[in-house]
Amino acid sequence: MGTLGATLCAVAPGLVEIALRPGPAISQQHGFVHAGAVSAIADSAAGYAALSLMSANRGVLTAEFKINLLAPAQGDLIIARGKVIKTGRTLTLAQAEVFSQIAGQERLIAFLTATLMAIEGREGVSD
Amino acid sequence: MGTLGATLCAVAPGLVEIALRPGPAISQQHGFVHAGAVSAIADSAAGYAALSLMSANRGVLTAEFKINLLAPAQGDLIIARGKVIKTGRTLTLAQAEVFSQIAGQERLIAFLTATLMAIEGREGVSD
Amino acid sequence: MGTLGATLCAVAPGLVEIALRPGPAISQQHGFVHAGAVSAIADSAAGYAALSLMSANRGVLTAEFKINLLAPAQGDLIIARGKVIKTGRTLTLAQAEVFSQIAGQERLIAFLTATLMAIEGREGVSD
Amino acid sequence: MGTLGATLCAVAPGLVEIALRPGPAISQQHGFVHAGAVSAIADSAAGYAALSLMSANRGVLTAEFKINLLAPAQGDLIIARGKVIKTGRTLTLAQAEVFSQIAGQERLIAFLTATLMAIEGREGVSD
Repeated sequence: MGTLGATLCAVAPGLVEIALRPGPAISQQHGFVHAGAVSAIADSAAGYAALSLMSANRGVLTAEFKINLLAPAQGDLIIARGKVIKTGRTLTLAQAEVFSQIAGQERLIAFLTATLMAIEGREGVSD
Repeated sequence: MGTLGATLCAVAPGLVEIALRPGPAISQQHGFVHAGAVSAIADSAAGYAALSLMSANRGVLTAEFKINLLAPAQGDLIIARGKVIKTGRTLTLAQAEVFSQIAGQERLIAFLTATLMAIEGREGVSD
Repeated sequence: MGTLGATLCAVAPGLVEIALRPGPAISQQHGFVHAGAVSAIADSAAGYAALSLMSANRGVLTAEFKINLLAPAQGDLIIARGKVIKTGRTLTLAQAEVFSQIAGQERLIAFLTATLMAIEGREGVSD
Repeated sequence: MGTLGATLCAVAPGLVEIALRPGPAISQQHGFVHAGAVSAIADSAAGYAALSLMSANRGVLTAEFKINLLAPAQGDLIIARGKVIKTGRTLTLAQAEVFSQIAGQERLIAFLTATLMAIEGREGVSD
């Protein structure tokens, strides 16, 4: 997240927001934010939302995610909002909506769902 | 790709390889390469594989991708191999396998499928 | 839908509901409704939601869907609620939530996102 | 599977084939096999491929699958070939390719990846 220049704001239990300010380092050849950076903040927002509902000794790993890219990522700010859809004993499903903010207006640019696996006491893989 | 330190090697029509050398800027807190960086090179490998089969005046956009993360991304090199599964008039399906290379041994660490949309003459969104 | 015994209720533009009454023909070996039947009504709910926002001469095709299966499908009724997330010129993204209803209580059992492609004048593939 | 009229052929450890003969009960309004039936045999082929590599006291549950639908499902026979991509302690990733067979010629019509969860001793949810 530091390499991308993203900032994390926990909003509430099960809800997390991550914001990213567009710039040259994370842009592709047309000046839009690269899909990889959009995916990274969306996956992180979903993962932290899941983590925010777990007991302190547990971590989460992303087992899989799907992201639909709906519009080019551009504007003053890119904001990913993660939310837990369903918690389970082993697997949690979370989503993230990504918005671009231009002159105060938000527009949905991507939608992600992710399966997170709860991890306990597995050295090196907890998050 | 430059920010991540990735290098692109076209292998053959419909086949593309992207390699990434792990380092602090793209790692998460346990020293593994961040899932966002793994996704970025996998998505790019699939996208360039699709692009390699198109006529010169066309571009591609990723409409969606799903990635399954199978093992932590660590080692000397992370390699994404993109391959076209099926070309269509509007949509192309491509896959990417991501391997970690440790002491010359490769291990599958992620698997992606992506839907790429062919773009012609849409200013600013072609790739 | 007839083979499965499902019924379709359009709720509003962009919103569709499909209900399915569990029975032996669509159950697997433990008496739950088969994942294939759950997927079928979820995909249909998302597709009809997309179709409900299109002009009369257009059809939709499912290009892809992902479904997360969250709990066994059992109960008095299985209900899929489809909703459009974003419409586009060529591609529309829709979601469907599937609930099981037991003694009047609903519980989320599956979550689907689908990419629908708008089709115009392609003989045989419009829906 | 019986309702769909599908037949299962185990091919080898980690490889499973399911075949389906098109007919009115599983067709949509244009005479093609319904996407729900295609998904059902693809998911089953992937799931049985995973199951074929497990010890006898374990079952599998599909946690999620994504399917890309590449061409209409028609012809003399619809064949799903499931294959394990990677086995893990808790989660297994499998794929299925679905082909239509017309006059002896096969054509790829769908591609699925599925996450299967191994289950042991959970009454009612093992498969």
